[in-house]
Amino acid sequence: VGRKALAVNLSDLAAMAARPVAALISLALPREGAESLARELYEGLLPLAERYDVAIAGGDTNSWDGRLVISVTVLGELAEHGPWRRGGGQPGDRVLVTGQFGGSILGRHFDFEPRVDEALQLASRYEIHAAIDVSDGLSLDLSRLAAESGCGAQLRLDAIPISADAHALAAESNDGRTALDHALSDGEDFELILTAEPGEAQRIVAEQPLGIPIADIGELVPDAGLWSIDASGARTPLAPRGFEH
Amino acid sequence: VGRKALAVNLSDLAAMAARPVAALISLALPREGAESLARELYEGLLPLAERYDVAIAGGDTNSWDGRLVISVTVLGELAEHGPWRRGGGQPGDRVLVTGQFGGSILGRHFDFEPRVDEALQLASRYEIHAAIDVSDGLSLDLSRLAAESGCGAQLRLDAIPISADAHALAAESNDGRTALDHALSDGEDFELILTAEPGEAQRIVAEQPLGIPIADIGELVPDAGLWSIDASGARTPLAPRGFEH
Repeated sequence: VGRKALAVNLSDLAAMAARPVAALISLALPREGAESLARELYEGLLPLAERYDVAIAGGDTNSWDGRLVISVTVLGELAEHGPWRRGGGQPGDRVLVTGQFGGSILGRHFDFEPRVDEALQLASRYEIHAAIDVSDGLSLDLSRLAAESGCGAQLRLDAIPISADAHALAAESNDGRTALDHALSDGEDFELILTAEPGEAQRIVAEQPLGIPIADIGELVPDAGLWSIDASGARTPLAPRGFEH
Repeated sequence: VGRKALAVNLSDLAAMAARPVAALISLALPREGAESLARELYEGLLPLAERYDVAIAGGDTNSWDGRLVISVTVLGELAEHGPWRRGGGQPGDRVLVTGQFGGSILGRHFDFEPRVDEALQLASRYEIHAAIDVSDGLSLDLSRLAAESGCGAQLRLDAIPISADAHALAAESNDGRTALDHALSDGEDFELILTAEPGEAQRIVAEQPLGIPIADIGELVPDAGLWSIDASGARTPLAPRGFEH
């Protein structure tokens, strides 16, 4: 849990192509067992902080007659090319994603690697128009990026990278949700959605510059909304699904 | 409460003669009435942020099935002469304090003015060796400053500025505590304790450069401990008292 509390913040910085610098950790610890709980949280948190050279620079530690509360803020520096934003996408942009989606509840939501290094690499080599990290669900977070960009988006469902966990969840449960459903809506994948001009996107996919796969799953379109599109070009409306705060 | 959560952080910056720049506000709000509670907290907080030109730059806002948790971190910039620290005091330094002490529970602990402007003024005009703000009690916080400086401290009790609230508390309760007891141990005064060489201290007290009084209440001494000292120079040990975390 300590690791995750920091990692989700690092993922937010990755989504803006910012370099993490310092973290502020605030803990409200249940009075009973406060010290050992604090120790355990930091045992999860510190190796990740070290891995990304993030100084624990403040926050607050208190105990109280209540349940555990953790609040983490990470401060970062912008890479040369300024922050990526959700709203920078343009109609015609290709939609790219890192990694694979769905089924993070089986464990990946705790031990995922925030895409900090990948974002800084991409920002230094390519022109990215817009970005967001997938915390609430691929389809929901893509629809947010598209809306902020004043666009819609259409997805080639057969191009979406589906994780083994999504297949495992679909196989073991009887709720009728397919592996693709899980990939589109589970959330907490903490992968990146990026948009770029078609030529630039093609170059990225061809060069595969990251240690993890990056795939083209669709494009931004001028009209608001979300669709799936098949090989013939026929569009079907797609409801954005995921975790609503 | 919202105002206080920010003000205590501004007081911490004042104690280092730092200029506040930005605040990170993290709230865990009880789900029921979360929005109106958030509004009220910010109604207390925002005027103070505006008064000190502090940007609300982040943090997190969540609701949950638990009680209210507030965590505030304020980021600041150092004034020219670097930060004041608790450990910069030297034997022979005079001990100065801003304002008056005791009885803050009658209301001042909510509406006190953090000594941000006063600290920056003092830092720009005088050489201050060490500083701390009084959050836990005048005698306790002074003993902390002295210990960090590798010193002890002796106080002239008749020189301690006692607030009207301390007198009121002493008069209305039957617990035998005098107004001076309240001044020495109540805490949440959020005034500054400062040390400086005798000549510099004399100049500060003579010039009274602040809109609030600044008084000489004693000196740092080479031997560890806390004492009161009378007009004849006789020393009596004084137990540091206040709020222990």
